[in-house]
Amino acid sequence: MRSSKREVSDCPVDAAMQVIAGRWKGTILWSLQDGPKRTSELQRSIPGIPERILIVRLHELVADGVIEREEKKMLPRGVYYSLSSYGRTLSPVIELISRWGRSHLKRLSERG
Amino acid sequence: MRSSKREVSDCPVDAAMQVIAGRWKGTILWSLQDGPKRTSELQRSIPGIPERILIVRLHELVADGVIEREEKKMLPRGVYYSLSSYGRTLSPVIELISRWGRSHLKRLSERG
Repeated sequence: MRSSKREVSDCPVDAAMQVIAGRWKGTILWSLQDGPKRTSELQRSIPGIPERILIVRLHELVADGVIEREEKKMLPRGVYYSLSSYGRTLSPVIELISRWGRSHLKRLSERG
Repeated sequence: MRSSKREVSDCPVDAAMQVIAGRWKGTILWSLQDGPKRTSELQRSIPGIPERILIVRLHELVADGVIEREEKKMLPRGVYYSLSSYGRTLSPVIELISRWGRSHLKRLSERG
């Protein structure tokens, strides 16, 4: 859908959507609201997301600077993802999207 | 990316994003905030959108019930698109996405 050197839009809505709109990206950001998570924890918290897609989306979100990847040397070891300070500025947006989705979940699931 | 009979998500964020996340969809909804528009007016108001993509996105937004298509028999004749009452419930979401995009447009345009 999108080349890595993507078209930059002057439209604020389009520019913002290019950061949050890839399938599952919003859900990943939502899942990181309550703190850093490993890839495996993210996968468990997002039922249905294929691991390959999760990896791609994490990579894109890191590239956009909204999340950060950190390798912890201390126990429990592992690679953790967390919201960056820039990414946290998106929290009200993700929260509002979630609230709208929750209000209309019945209709949304009927669309299919 | 998405089949016409799409996978339905129980996640409110993912379900909501499936309505607004196709490239330019948010911008189309933004452009309809101030009233009904013809296809040609929409195209002029969204610089860079290919006509073919605009038509596809309008079709998807109509299918999701967030916009309505109306053929006006009175002058000025033509096909008009407008937000449905359901679509208007998305306005605060689109407004917040736009505000976030505006606040970060410099950074977003530098990403490229």
